[in-house]
Amino acid sequence: MALVVAMVGGGQLARLTAPAALTIGVRLRALVESATSSAAQVLVDAHVGAPDSAADVARLLEGPPRADVLTFEHENVPPEVLDAVARSGVAVRPSPEALSHAQDKLVMRRRLAALGVPMPRWAPVTDEGDLATFLVEVGGTAVVKTARGGYDGKGVRVVTEAHQVTDWLASAAAGGPQLLVEEFVAFKRELAVMLARRPSGGIRCWPVVETLQVDGMCAEVVAPAPRLDPTVNEAAIDIAVRLAEELDVTGVMAVEMFEVDRDGQPGVVVNELAMRTHNSGHWTIDGAATSQFEQHLRAILDLPLGEPSARAPWTVMHNVLGGHVGGFSTALAQVLARDPGVRVHIYGKEPRRGRKLGHVCVYGEDLAELLVRARSAAAILEGHRLPADPRS
Amino acid sequence: MALVVAMVGGGQLARLTAPAALTIGVRLRALVESATSSAAQVLVDAHVGAPDSAADVARLLEGPPRADVLTFEHENVPPEVLDAVARSGVAVRPSPEALSHAQDKLVMRRRLAALGVPMPRWAPVTDEGDLATFLVEVGGTAVVKTARGGYDGKGVRVVTEAHQVTDWLASAAAGGPQLLVEEFVAFKRELAVMLARRPSGGIRCWPVVETLQVDGMCAEVVAPAPRLDPTVNEAAIDIAVRLAEELDVTGVMAVEMFEVDRDGQPGVVVNELAMRTHNSGHWTIDGAATSQFEQHLRAILDLPLGEPSARAPWTVMHNVLGGHVGGFSTALAQVLARDPGVRVHIYGKEPRRGRKLGHVCVYGEDLAELLVRARSAAAILEGHRLPADPRS
Repeated sequence: MALVVAMVGGGQLARLTAPAALTIGVRLRALVESATSSAAQVLVDAHVGAPDSAADVARLLEGPPRADVLTFEHENVPPEVLDAVARSGVAVRPSPEALSHAQDKLVMRRRLAALGVPMPRWAPVTDEGDLATFLVEVGGTAVVKTARGGYDGKGVRVVTEAHQVTDWLASAAAGGPQLLVEEFVAFKRELAVMLARRPSGGIRCWPVVETLQVDGMCAEVVAPAPRLDPTVNEAAIDIAVRLAEELDVTGVMAVEMFEVDRDGQPGVVVNELAMRTHNSGHWTIDGAATSQFEQHLRAILDLPLGEPSARAPWTVMHNVLGGHVGGFSTALAQVLARDPGVRVHIYGKEPRRGRKLGHVCVYGEDLAELLVRARSAAAILEGHRLPADPRS
Repeated sequence: MALVVAMVGGGQLARLTAPAALTIGVRLRALVESATSSAAQVLVDAHVGAPDSAADVARLLEGPPRADVLTFEHENVPPEVLDAVARSGVAVRPSPEALSHAQDKLVMRRRLAALGVPMPRWAPVTDEGDLATFLVEVGGTAVVKTARGGYDGKGVRVVTEAHQVTDWLASAAAGGPQLLVEEFVAFKRELAVMLARRPSGGIRCWPVVETLQVDGMCAEVVAPAPRLDPTVNEAAIDIAVRLAEELDVTGVMAVEMFEVDRDGQPGVVVNELAMRTHNSGHWTIDGAATSQFEQHLRAILDLPLGEPSARAPWTVMHNVLGGHVGGFSTALAQVLARDPGVRVHIYGKEPRRGRKLGHVCVYGEDLAELLVRARSAAAILEGHRLPADPRS
């Protein structure tokens, strides 16, 4: 009898979980936004519904057969819906309590502060006076975030004046998302640590990666992070493992960090947490012994975790965004003809400017060459013309 | 607009094609034996029907959207059904003419003879007299095969007396499958060459592998074939490439060969052909830069072919057969706990003694260790008790 995993969300993260599920014989059922969503196109068992509807989530679990565990590809499930599921006897992984730290940045910042985890200076914001004071303290520029609902650069505003978030403050006062402000960190680069943790306690951590964000969205990931100071590597992993244990995380967690130099000492501060598979881990499909998608399923089903090591010296993942002009299949043929080793992943989404439509992945021994190959492949798929390939 | 591939067959080969299809954004639609077949469990677009029904195959193509190409996971589609599809304007890949060599061993042997490809001595058999004569010529033992419909050891009988196939001769005389007889080859081992060929002509060949057959079924594959004489390697690849070109194969082809020593000269003779993905190529999912499943889709869609090289010095694939006694999920947890690096593939089929239920794959640098790991993992999944693991 196959184990049944119910997942809230029908985007590319659910779609990319489908191969992992069928490989290990797990039945994946998803609550999708529409019958044509990225995951709905490839899952036999896709239910159209709303993640904030207790009735829709309950139906997702019912089956038959009844789901063994509920998990998520995004954080937009209200706590009361999660609590109802937990009371019904179906395991919720990560748990509602753990997940609250990924759903609400104020909850996350307060908990990290209590744990003494390094992070940017921050403060809750309820009026323009709070914000003006904070701006003076940090030297004039800061980042205001909505505590809930932000992703891919949404819900984040870099400000120098308090009146730049007047609209958000009004919304917060009227019951909308609460706000916090963080110092604008002069980071050297961004890193991400991804790990998986089972309910019975085992943790496996993938190599620390470097992530390149453009317009608040992940654009490129290099695994492992090049020239990473061993003390920074150790500190980054220690923080992620400690958070996983302290927050009792189950499943995959991504911890996004800034690498910083403070008083001449290299180190990291925690930027964001996600308790689900994550764009920073797409490289693991082609580049690691166990992908984040299979590992997440194994973790939430409390199965032994797989080897997370990299399969090649370097792996580069580059996102493909909407905006291409030519036909996608023509572009695909061009990319495959140019580079027989490139791995192309297409999400089946309608093209829209700036939307994540897929990703490409290359691996090997020469990082400089891999970066050119990944960026060229992504650019062609996005519809850019490239100069003639010197190798052809 | 996604390309649509229609595949005849709903077993594990169609199931294992599903991840490859969704990765490159191809819509896979299959004609399945039942709504609970291995592939039907994981494909949104599965149609229950019979492969020998022209109406069922026509409906498979219709959609909407209409299929761009028809392909196969088995050979059991009658030529007249294939011809009707080709006439309707949908590409059939491999073509009915090419496929006939994989459907009918008499057609295949005659064509190989015309091409001068090395193979066992053979003869068509229509009565006991033919067979008795052949048995004398080859020294007393031979292999009788039905020209059509055999697989996994079915349709094959090792005989020493002509009366051992009296039933098959009667069936052949009454319009059943025709028969041929082949010498019993004293081979050193079995090899397989797999390649893919596009309609526009490109061919990519995976490394030659060693296959171990038990009871006529593939049990284990080692990639690349250990200690392979370079001249044998070259001869094996030359034969496969020549056959692909001469027979105008499109898609993946597997050529099963015997490695032999004749008059002190090492060489190969051709045993069987298959024009589809094949058990000998399952190792490519985890072990090669491009899997046979993605390569088959790229080939039949006339997309540029991917790099076929191995990703590790050695890859070992071992089949998991039905017969296990314990619960499958308990066995799965045991295997994953013993070996964090093993890749387990489960086909979702009801356990039945001797049925292929899945496979395991390991890769790395130490072949002796990999063989132990693959065989141990398969044995546990099959329900055997193993001695205590010395490493645990």
